[in-house]
Amino acid sequence: MGFGFIIFAGAQLLRLPMASESGQSTSFIDALFTATSATCVTGLVVFDTGTYFSTFGHWVILVLIQIGGIGFMTMATLFALILRRRISLKERLILQESLNQGSIEGLVRLVRKVILFALAIESVGAVLFTIRFMFDMNIGQAIYHGVFHSISIFNNAGFDLTGDFRSLTGYSSDLYMNVVSMGLIILGGFGFIVLADLFEIRRKRKFSLHTKVVLSVTALLVVSGTLIIFLFEFTNGRSFGNNGIGHKILISLFQSVTTRSGGVTTVDITEFRQATQFFIIILMFIGASPGSTGGGIKTTTFAVLVGAVLAMIRGKEDVVLFRLRLAQERVYKAVTVTLFCIGIVMLGTMLLATTEDAAFLTILFEATSAFGTVGLSMGLTGELSFTGKLTIIFLMFIGRLGPLTLTYALGPKPGRMLYRHAEGKMIIG
Amino acid sequence: MGFGFIIFAGAQLLRLPMASESGQSTSFIDALFTATSATCVTGLVVFDTGTYFSTFGHWVILVLIQIGGIGFMTMATLFALILRRRISLKERLILQESLNQGSIEGLVRLVRKVILFALAIESVGAVLFTIRFMFDMNIGQAIYHGVFHSISIFNNAGFDLTGDFRSLTGYSSDLYMNVVSMGLIILGGFGFIVLADLFEIRRKRKFSLHTKVVLSVTALLVVSGTLIIFLFEFTNGRSFGNNGIGHKILISLFQSVTTRSGGVTTVDITEFRQATQFFIIILMFIGASPGSTGGGIKTTTFAVLVGAVLAMIRGKEDVVLFRLRLAQERVYKAVTVTLFCIGIVMLGTMLLATTEDAAFLTILFEATSAFGTVGLSMGLTGELSFTGKLTIIFLMFIGRLGPLTLTYALGPKPGRMLYRHAEGKMIIG
Ligand SMILES: [K+]
Ligand SMILES: [K+]
Repeated sequence: MGFGFIIFAGAQLLRLPMASESGQSTSFIDALFTATSATCVTGLVVFDTGTYFSTFGHWVILVLIQIGGIGFMTMATLFALILRRRISLKERLILQESLNQGSIEGLVRLVRKVILFALAIESVGAVLFTIRFMFDMNIGQAIYHGVFHSISIFNNAGFDLTGDFRSLTGYSSDLYMNVVSMGLIILGGFGFIVLADLFEIRRKRKFSLHTKVVLSVTALLVVSGTLIIFLFEFTNGRSFGNNGIGHKILISLFQSVTTRSGGVTTVDITEFRQATQFFIIILMFIGASPGSTGGGIKTTTFAVLVGAVLAMIRGKEDVVLFRLRLAQERVYKAVTVTLFCIGIVMLGTMLLATTEDAAFLTILFEATSAFGTVGLSMGLTGELSFTGKLTIIFLMFIGRLGPLTLTYALGPKPGRMLYRHAEGKMIIG
Repeated sequence: MGFGFIIFAGAQLLRLPMASESGQSTSFIDALFTATSATCVTGLVVFDTGTYFSTFGHWVILVLIQIGGIGFMTMATLFALILRRRISLKERLILQESLNQGSIEGLVRLVRKVILFALAIESVGAVLFTIRFMFDMNIGQAIYHGVFHSISIFNNAGFDLTGDFRSLTGYSSDLYMNVVSMGLIILGGFGFIVLADLFEIRRKRKFSLHTKVVLSVTALLVVSGTLIIFLFEFTNGRSFGNNGIGHKILISLFQSVTTRSGGVTTVDITEFRQATQFFIIILMFIGASPGSTGGGIKTTTFAVLVGAVLAMIRGKEDVVLFRLRLAQERVYKAVTVTLFCIGIVMLGTMLLATTEDAAFLTILFEATSAFGTVGLSMGLTGELSFTGKLTIIFLMFIGRLGPLTLTYALGPKPGRMLYRHAEGKMIIG
């Protein structure tokens, strides 16, 4: 698997003495952890990125993020488009024909387009960040920090150079930094198809169902997340302090956005109330949109789940979104993939609960953050045992590739249903 | 709704001064809580049943348990059989015809059979318990305790008269009490259809798919549960103490069985390790079998989920159990009902996390125990706030009726699909 190879190569580079600031070589497990976290654009870290790694180390991490983020985005977009074509034509032979010379050129053009989109947004982000950092450091440093944070945040990687595991807590009241960061997280989390749809809206005049669902679910999650975090926390002096109400709303908004799977934070999550932390766990599990740099079960899957439960309660057979019915097999897939993901998070939580000495909520938080490739932390990652690190590495890897693989790569193979078992009857519920 | 009315009437009786040992009237919320816990055969208690309530109070609770347990068992069995008939004939008209005079007589006969089965098992249990209790108390008391515990435990109600919230911890090494109790929990958790199948095996020679699945999943859960609890706890001096290995295995076995949704316990669950507590939460969520006195998503649903995830990973379309294929719509229903149940437990946990001051794992445990109508407790129920009690009441009620209602009562209504929306395409995963 390509991803595994990239992670392994990255880990070898990060082990080198020249990758660390101290000039000492890093243990294999910690290098592997960092490489996995970068390539799976998660952002959970065993070391403080800014102070532990050298400039060489930072570049290795940045390249891993770029390959991991854009690579995955491209792959997921291709999968989705090929699948979409397959379903709409309902004819496998035509698909095989369409993958001939002419179509491969089309695919290359598409890949180029995805990369150009990403690089364009990252460039704008880098410039905007650099302008801000020039107030705090010299121009060379500012460019370095600007480029690193733009790439890290657009790819929803959650790595930062601010030092001392601070993430963006120093900028919690800085409107400019907040807006640029949230913009990059959200754009990165939309996925290419939505970005292209947004970009070409003048020509097309109408959004696809996919784009409509992504935009509305994202808006719903961000707004309701902000509201609930604000309500739960505005009397909590330890998390929100004595800040003004505007500042508190800004922190709530940023916190809500970053669960889409940004991973940077402007506030210490450990100080939140339990209810807020559990709510953030749910938001992280939902995550970003398909074919994006973000993780989780995806906004569209969440929309299908809500639709399926509503349809069941109302006694309807069809799941309907925006007056369009979803194919039964897609609904089924969404529900099953979600259950699988819940199972994986539970398995990871169980493993961590046996090997780590921490409160259960902290463990569940860290496991979900790893699985959703979010990178928010309640501090457990810094204290993990060896097997704990392996568990988190496993969660990050399967969290990044699992949902996509299960949805597309492992679909029923055509022409293999040579015989079916007889139908049996059983009582459920 | 009939259940709501019974709970309400029971609460009014439990409020009376004569229902409590002290002769003082009980607050409405606590009476409602106790009545709900009894009728939904859960076993979570705000007062110690043995010492707080008078003999009159005990009889009210016992009647509620009997009505709740057998009433639900009968109802669920009828639903399942009617649905089974409907599916196998694939013809709604024939069903309507079959519900005429002759068939109603058949239904009455069936109901009578369910009740006779239950009463027979309860009677045997009462005799066995009475024999044991005669060693500890006078004969009148022994019969009283024998009848109460047999009915409570067969109906998976989890109420006890041992006093001081002790449950069966005083009997943890008593093989006789362990075997009788586990037998009653398991028989109660099988459901009528399996009991009838077991009873008639000589004549039929072959188990139905339903019975095969229930028996094998129950065996699998009990054995693997015992094994994991033993492995996690045998070095934990606070839970298992310095007991011999046989005693430790017996405690593990009983603990594994009681999660089927018995609710009585022979050990203090608070002293378990976090990993064990989380594992018990998962077992409680799965619960007992359909048409039984137990709760949870049910063993058959769990089998379908495992089958669905395995089929997805292998890229097969059909879910196959014991070489029989399950209808796609049943699989879909199982998966969706499970997701709904997870959503309800999460909602309850979230509400409790905002109103109660307790560790998150304790809250999740209590919410799952209430939803699965299990009745095991990590001590939170005794300290609940007013809104906390309402939340647990809600969880017990919806946990008892939700899965059944969603699976059968709320199915798509025939002849209502007058028009369907056009199909839309969207990317998930
Ligand atoms: K991330
Ligand atoms: K129970």
